[in-house]
Amino acid sequence: MGELHIHSVLVTGANRGIGLGLVRHLLAMLDPPKWVFATCRDPKGQQAQELRNLASKHPNLVIIPLEVTDPDSIQAAAARVAEHLGGSGLNLLINNAGIAKPMSLDHETLENMTQVYTTNTVGALLVGQAFLPLLKKAAQGSPGSALSCTKAALINMSSSPGSIEEVYLWEQALVVSYRCSKAALNMLNKCQSLGYREHGILCVALHPGWVQTDMGGSGSQKPPLTVDASVQGMLKVLSSLSNKDTGTFLDWEGKVVPW
Amino acid sequence: MGELHIHSVLVTGANRGIGLGLVRHLLAMLDPPKWVFATCRDPKGQQAQELRNLASKHPNLVIIPLEVTDPDSIQAAAARVAEHLGGSGLNLLINNAGIAKPMSLDHETLENMTQVYTTNTVGALLVGQAFLPLLKKAAQGSPGSALSCTKAALINMSSSPGSIEEVYLWEQALVVSYRCSKAALNMLNKCQSLGYREHGILCVALHPGWVQTDMGGSGSQKPPLTVDASVQGMLKVLSSLSNKDTGTFLDWEGKVVPW
Repeated sequence: MGELHIHSVLVTGANRGIGLGLVRHLLAMLDPPKWVFATCRDPKGQQAQELRNLASKHPNLVIIPLEVTDPDSIQAAAARVAEHLGGSGLNLLINNAGIAKPMSLDHETLENMTQVYTTNTVGALLVGQAFLPLLKKAAQGSPGSALSCTKAALINMSSSPGSIEEVYLWEQALVVSYRCSKAALNMLNKCQSLGYREHGILCVALHPGWVQTDMGGSGSQKPPLTVDASVQGMLKVLSSLSNKDTGTFLDWEGKVVPW
Repeated sequence: MGELHIHSVLVTGANRGIGLGLVRHLLAMLDPPKWVFATCRDPKGQQAQELRNLASKHPNLVIIPLEVTDPDSIQAAAARVAEHLGGSGLNLLINNAGIAKPMSLDHETLENMTQVYTTNTVGALLVGQAFLPLLKKAAQGSPGSALSCTKAALINMSSSPGSIEEVYLWEQALVVSYRCSKAALNMLNKCQSLGYREHGILCVALHPGWVQTDMGGSGSQKPPLTVDASVQGMLKVLSSLSNKDTGTFLDWEGKVVPW
């Protein structure tokens, strides 16, 4: 299990939290990717300042606007990425963008449920579809048939609060809409793994752990994991993925999370 | 494991397929419920003719309009049911209404995904919320603390194509939106079981089998199960449910379906 060697990677929701952490660590690798595409809704906004600071130091970092609930925005982003790649494919797509809307079971609403699902689940589907040609191209351009993140992979950032078996943090996290969206995302990941396998694309759902981010830290308890620890763990897991892992749900330490 | 003895039951999506089959079998029991509430979107439409024929012969059958994606419609239906029950609770709520929109992974759309999720998953949440006071009342009015369908239960009609582990009928059924909505429904069912247990309400997700209905029979292969066989099986399962079953996912023969 060595370092991840990839030519190109795209991370959605990359301006904050785990997404930003992933970008930082990818850029800091001994053999960094030639292209790191970091997408967020508003690259010019205040919440993307850290991303812009990074881009000013790293010419291989490209910030691209992408709203994962807007098919037109996704298509435009895919076209821009293709332009930068100039004929080569995209090795690694990390569907990281996601939202949570705390609400008790008794007060959960149609609007909340739909909005969270659209971002967390449908967004991952649409982004996967739009970047599929670039992932296919990366797979075709890579020797051998073994699946790996170096070849072509789609990673869906899931969460063990979305494990139906575990319903992790049931008492603390009143997030039925989030739980449902992540269980559905795990199903989507399974479908993508079955549908995209013939194209040489690996698909894995990841649980980053309970991390000290705006999302993870909104409750009364402090999450145990730093962004750095979570991201280091996940990048190590990514570097080790192979055929046997496609369609699975793994945590930041590589352990299988039950559905 | 005897026959199901209940005072009152409500079935959504009751004008066709499995919903209609459930109503028929409930009415035909040796000791039928005092109230069978059958809901559908358009009780006056052509697609509710069989339900109206049944109602003309069974005074204990009440047809009520209910659109599960419309919170106002759900509230109005709950008010009408409460009126009929006149102070007593509702023992059994069967969230059966559901839709499927065949579409391949590559062509799945935002509209499909959202529409199917809203009906199959959010609808089950909202109907559960609206009828919770009546389910609570039934639980309070029933002696003992053991959970059962005779006391108070919420049954979510799921489907093993929504099992992430099995992805049942992957090759035949191109229904990513449906699979995601049912995986999310299984999560909702788990959340409801955890949230409603203290109120004495049992929650179970059921897989009816692959059944000869408009939905099940839309592909090239004929489904193996008749509506009657599926419904007979499910009613037998319902009569046997107890504390250990709440939050689980069972098929029409009572076997556990993996998440």
